[in-house]
Amino acid sequence: MIIILQPHVTSQSAEFRQLMDYLSHRPNIQTRLHQEIGTRQTLTEIYLIGDTASLDQAEIENQPGVERVVRISEEYRILGRHHDDRRPTGFDYNGVLFSQDNLNVFAGLCAVDTPEHVEEMLKTLQQHGQVCTRMGAYKPRTNPYSFQGHGKACLPWVFELAGKYGIKVIAMEITHDSHLDEIRAALEKTGKPTGVMLQIGTRNTQNFELLKIVGRQREFPVLLKRGFGITLEESLNAAEYLASEGNARIVFGLRGMKTNMGDPHRNFVDFAHVPVVKRLTRMPVCIDPSHSVGTRERAPDGLLDVYHVTAQGVIAGANMVLVDFHPHPQKALVDGPQALLLEELPWFLEDVAIAREAYEKRRLLAERETRKLRL
Amino acid sequence: MIIILQPHVTSQSAEFRQLMDYLSHRPNIQTRLHQEIGTRQTLTEIYLIGDTASLDQAEIENQPGVERVVRISEEYRILGRHHDDRRPTGFDYNGVLFSQDNLNVFAGLCAVDTPEHVEEMLKTLQQHGQVCTRMGAYKPRTNPYSFQGHGKACLPWVFELAGKYGIKVIAMEITHDSHLDEIRAALEKTGKPTGVMLQIGTRNTQNFELLKIVGRQREFPVLLKRGFGITLEESLNAAEYLASEGNARIVFGLRGMKTNMGDPHRNFVDFAHVPVVKRLTRMPVCIDPSHSVGTRERAPDGLLDVYHVTAQGVIAGANMVLVDFHPHPQKALVDGPQALLLEELPWFLEDVAIAREAYEKRRLLAERETRKLRL
Amino acid sequence: MIIILQPHVTSQSAEFRQLMDYLSHRPNIQTRLHQEIGTRQTLTEIYLIGDTASLDQAEIENQPGVERVVRISEEYRILGRHHDDRRPTGFDYNGVLFSQDNLNVFAGLCAVDTPEHVEEMLKTLQQHGQVCTRMGAYKPRTNPYSFQGHGKACLPWVFELAGKYGIKVIAMEITHDSHLDEIRAALEKTGKPTGVMLQIGTRNTQNFELLKIVGRQREFPVLLKRGFGITLEESLNAAEYLASEGNARIVFGLRGMKTNMGDPHRNFVDFAHVPVVKRLTRMPVCIDPSHSVGTRERAPDGLLDVYHVTAQGVIAGANMVLVDFHPHPQKALVDGPQALLLEELPWFLEDVAIAREAYEKRRLLAERETRKLRL
Amino acid sequence: MIIILQPHVTSQSAEFRQLMDYLSHRPNIQTRLHQEIGTRQTLTEIYLIGDTASLDQAEIENQPGVERVVRISEEYRILGRHHDDRRPTGFDYNGVLFSQDNLNVFAGLCAVDTPEHVEEMLKTLQQHGQVCTRMGAYKPRTNPYSFQGHGKACLPWVFELAGKYGIKVIAMEITHDSHLDEIRAALEKTGKPTGVMLQIGTRNTQNFELLKIVGRQREFPVLLKRGFGITLEESLNAAEYLASEGNARIVFGLRGMKTNMGDPHRNFVDFAHVPVVKRLTRMPVCIDPSHSVGTRERAPDGLLDVYHVTAQGVIAGANMVLVDFHPHPQKALVDGPQALLLEELPWFLEDVAIAREAYEKRRLLAERETRKLRL
Repeated sequence: MIIILQPHVTSQSAEFRQLMDYLSHRPNIQTRLHQEIGTRQTLTEIYLIGDTASLDQAEIENQPGVERVVRISEEYRILGRHHDDRRPTGFDYNGVLFSQDNLNVFAGLCAVDTPEHVEEMLKTLQQHGQVCTRMGAYKPRTNPYSFQGHGKACLPWVFELAGKYGIKVIAMEITHDSHLDEIRAALEKTGKPTGVMLQIGTRNTQNFELLKIVGRQREFPVLLKRGFGITLEESLNAAEYLASEGNARIVFGLRGMKTNMGDPHRNFVDFAHVPVVKRLTRMPVCIDPSHSVGTRERAPDGLLDVYHVTAQGVIAGANMVLVDFHPHPQKALVDGPQALLLEELPWFLEDVAIAREAYEKRRLLAERETRKLRL
Repeated sequence: MIIILQPHVTSQSAEFRQLMDYLSHRPNIQTRLHQEIGTRQTLTEIYLIGDTASLDQAEIENQPGVERVVRISEEYRILGRHHDDRRPTGFDYNGVLFSQDNLNVFAGLCAVDTPEHVEEMLKTLQQHGQVCTRMGAYKPRTNPYSFQGHGKACLPWVFELAGKYGIKVIAMEITHDSHLDEIRAALEKTGKPTGVMLQIGTRNTQNFELLKIVGRQREFPVLLKRGFGITLEESLNAAEYLASEGNARIVFGLRGMKTNMGDPHRNFVDFAHVPVVKRLTRMPVCIDPSHSVGTRERAPDGLLDVYHVTAQGVIAGANMVLVDFHPHPQKALVDGPQALLLEELPWFLEDVAIAREAYEKRRLLAERETRKLRL
Repeated sequence: MIIILQPHVTSQSAEFRQLMDYLSHRPNIQTRLHQEIGTRQTLTEIYLIGDTASLDQAEIENQPGVERVVRISEEYRILGRHHDDRRPTGFDYNGVLFSQDNLNVFAGLCAVDTPEHVEEMLKTLQQHGQVCTRMGAYKPRTNPYSFQGHGKACLPWVFELAGKYGIKVIAMEITHDSHLDEIRAALEKTGKPTGVMLQIGTRNTQNFELLKIVGRQREFPVLLKRGFGITLEESLNAAEYLASEGNARIVFGLRGMKTNMGDPHRNFVDFAHVPVVKRLTRMPVCIDPSHSVGTRERAPDGLLDVYHVTAQGVIAGANMVLVDFHPHPQKALVDGPQALLLEELPWFLEDVAIAREAYEKRRLLAERETRKLRL
Repeated sequence: MIIILQPHVTSQSAEFRQLMDYLSHRPNIQTRLHQEIGTRQTLTEIYLIGDTASLDQAEIENQPGVERVVRISEEYRILGRHHDDRRPTGFDYNGVLFSQDNLNVFAGLCAVDTPEHVEEMLKTLQQHGQVCTRMGAYKPRTNPYSFQGHGKACLPWVFELAGKYGIKVIAMEITHDSHLDEIRAALEKTGKPTGVMLQIGTRNTQNFELLKIVGRQREFPVLLKRGFGITLEESLNAAEYLASEGNARIVFGLRGMKTNMGDPHRNFVDFAHVPVVKRLTRMPVCIDPSHSVGTRERAPDGLLDVYHVTAQGVIAGANMVLVDFHPHPQKALVDGPQALLLEELPWFLEDVAIAREAYEKRRLLAERETRKLRL
């Protein structure tokens, strides 16, 4: 059971103390405090665990300071959409809104290589009005003898360049908790010229220790990619690990499943799960068309498969697109063959805009029709 | 190697005889004649098998009556898109065009049950300008003790009702060659009030004997569904079985793959393969959102997952949509839970139209951009 | 519910008529007769369908001629192991016993090619005391342009050679019901020198029309291979199709599942399901190590993977082994690379014998221990 | 390329210095030293990376102190079996030998719960001559609200009890590098009464940061479980991560793959890969029948599926068995339903012994036959 407090009530308020006192007299009930500190207001929630079946929901809703009470199902306690659950989805970070109702594009380099390439990329993004990017400093690679990313060495200049070109959020994969410290240190050292969304990749979706550590910090939001050999339910439970430790500012990322049934694509594109994740949880949903498709193959209509699957994700309501670009794919150290070219960026953005516009029309139509059919 | 003859050249022409004589003098070459009889013209092709590497393409192109020569790769000899292959895609059937460039919706009953339900369905289709439908008379079921469809008994009244409501093409699954005879007989008996597209389901994708028999007839076009446990390449080879026997009027159907990685959907939706099939072959591509999704679950935006995946297929260029409706899903004998309601038909069609319109815009944009980027 | 009659009771007996009369007075109950005609006795069973919950089991067991009554669960009505179900497993065919308690090896050619190869194979089998073989005349192939088997043309000489070398049962795949007629005709023409076990391959596991037709004949037993993209439950339901039409003389064949998770083997070996199939049904279980493994790779201990997985199936109680040999694998028209050599036959048989002996010891140990632990 | 030095040559020897000097004059060649310190001798190897194609193998073999030179393929540089690679497999740890030629059983508790249960388990193991066990202190769980193991708190008393009952090696999963420190500290505090084999579970197979850290220590050997959603090749590359950091004392564990094709087993049993791993690498191979099967279902022959799949792994040459027991499965905090009972231990061990004996016979037969067939 979740008690959502009125916006003005904090853990210092008299109502809060009174409510906690009331709860402490209910038998076999433990409480846990959860706060979402937004730009405009702080949302305070009290999670009740234990014999909640015996509690009187109406009585609790009548306590001072309580806005409403949500009975939750067992799964996805914090992130789930529970019955009659009108809590907002999403969050603000460094001036960018992430929610189930809008769309952000993160075009960028799969792996940071040279300052020249990073600068070319960022300059082009700025020219086309983009304020988000992806930049991989830590690269988990199947083969131990492959290039593993420049790591912390590249962070300062990447962050400085990001600041120079007005980037507000960089999605950056981390694979160990020490990377979190390194990113925090580099940001501080460079005067926080940009923000970072910590990305946890498909190989670490069930690296629960990493999830717990990342979940304990509140500074950075998290992009959690779906695990490629597990069910959707298991991946959503992994997101709940983050939330259960305190950080619910999570975007959930679809990136295709690993099976030869998806050939000739690199992975089996799973963007039909966009509406499913939005139904089961309150997380915004990201799609990663580059890693899903893995090639630059083109349909007879002239459109790359990467464009097609992006449009598929977006027309079904995806909220974030993570996509690989590179100024010189043939020189890219990781995943060059799937990267789009810088001169393709305006086309890509316009293609995305067409799909998003179609989604908006579909949503308006749905509103009208559900009213008409009295759903 | 394929020799495509000029439109006026038939197997009775002098040019044809002269060309065959020329070919008979090439060592280790067998020929095979293939004719596509369209409404406006007949396309005659000669397939050359054997030691084609030794042939002089330019010399053959200079023979009288030859329009052009295509060197083919080993796979998908007839259906494939070969290098420099400008042959048209698709075909006309009973006044309806099926091609890689347009879109037809086949809404209808998964399984024929009563004449009342069939009539309700068809009347509604006519009211919304539809001339195609799906109607299952032969139903392959996992459990031998489940309802197996009304079979040939229902064919006459289904065809008559179709004719009454202006239906031009019914997609109808067959699971044995005797069903082909039964359909032909029922159509003749009722005076051919409608047309039939023979549907071969996912359990029979590699039922090669059925494919050969269906491939040998030219009367009905075929909708071949992808096999659910095999690679895309294997399913496309199954289509080639049909073509190799003479019938290349084939639509290829995506219907999801069977794996729990697709949960909570009934199957793992595979519509990211729409552009892939169009690139590898010249077949129009159908999507089956109902069997892929298998439920009536709805996203928080009010749209059913069935609508979302349909839009995903269509915005990537799908050419046909096979979708289950039922006037009273709770009374449906097969797959009721996934059926849409008759009153949802206009919404569904409008939702599809939005996605198709977005696809058309994307295609125009692609034309403009590929010119600009000189691709 | 199944009523098992006493051995002497047939459909002509007075007890039978009396029992049917009794049953005809129970409301909402349909009956269906099923007879297993063995060499020593005929087993007559009456299947009751409908409102069987209302029936009094004890009362029926007291009717004259009734041996016992088994309440069945919904799944696998005929083939399943139901609660308190002591019906025998298996059957005799042409002097060979097939049951859940013994083991038969079917070594032979994947595809019949020349009479010389067939004769070499059969002679070697006879030299090593074998009376069963596999011989493929009809070969379903992924690519329509590949060799499809010699079909009916080879049947007479294959059967005659089999008779010459004392072969009692040939496992032979069929892919269409016409093949059944061709086999019957060739056997009659040649004077029935041998027997045939009809094999239904993995691509036709859910070709229900073929299953129904094969299930309606009683002459030949059937080896049904598991479908490679469906669950075990779905494949067992396919076996039930055969049984529901009258033929319960079925061996169920495991042959690996199609997924790249099984690499570098051709298929993902599924022989851990041997005990599962024996628990869920009364069918003997066959393993096909050749198609599962698909190569002649060898472990550092000198044993081929084909030998290892065979031993794995046998030590867990497999009842039949289908294995590819060829006198000259490099000349084989189908699947040469996985074939064992004729000179390897004695080694293979001895290796199988070691595994079977181990299984027998394990079974004896289990009997002793279950008594001791009072399980 | 790997240069294997003669046993008496160490990095302090004159021959060594001379060789390194020789190598330093070869252009574009980097060297890396790798030492295996065994009980009887130290094996020193020099890995050459870079332009090794230009090196003269015979010339290097003639350098003083060189025993032999192995040209390696790109994959699995350290762990792989390369052409003409006669290096030994396996290692000794705390008096127990782990190799591709012997077998160790690790029966024990999936998760440590109470000292009473641990002591009951260990006492029973000692009574049956066992010196290895499994004991889970850190439990990665799908749901964040499930029991996560007692962690470091239980280590001291678990180690002391292990020492009391003569256990030499405990397999214990770790999920973060801090666990390694905790284990080392607890062992030191308690006077090293036992040894620990660090287990890395299927969710962390590609947690490369953990692999690198574990690979950098030489104190404990490692049991690396196969990842459940990746190919075998990818999992073997993960093992190479450990080796590339210095620790090649690795056992590779098969534990089933996650797909519903394995139903009704919890995972799809993959023990057919036992000979494959032994062919591709020099690692001993472990099987985990408990997590693969996940139930206590029993075949009609009285044998549990867990016993059957264990026998399947062992008869194909498995070198280690990790199996769950529990004195009171109904009280187990994790995976109780799959645990064997303490009173079943002697039966289990005898069943394993029968399978191992069969394997030994098969190996002897293979030696005899390969000689006979001159393979």
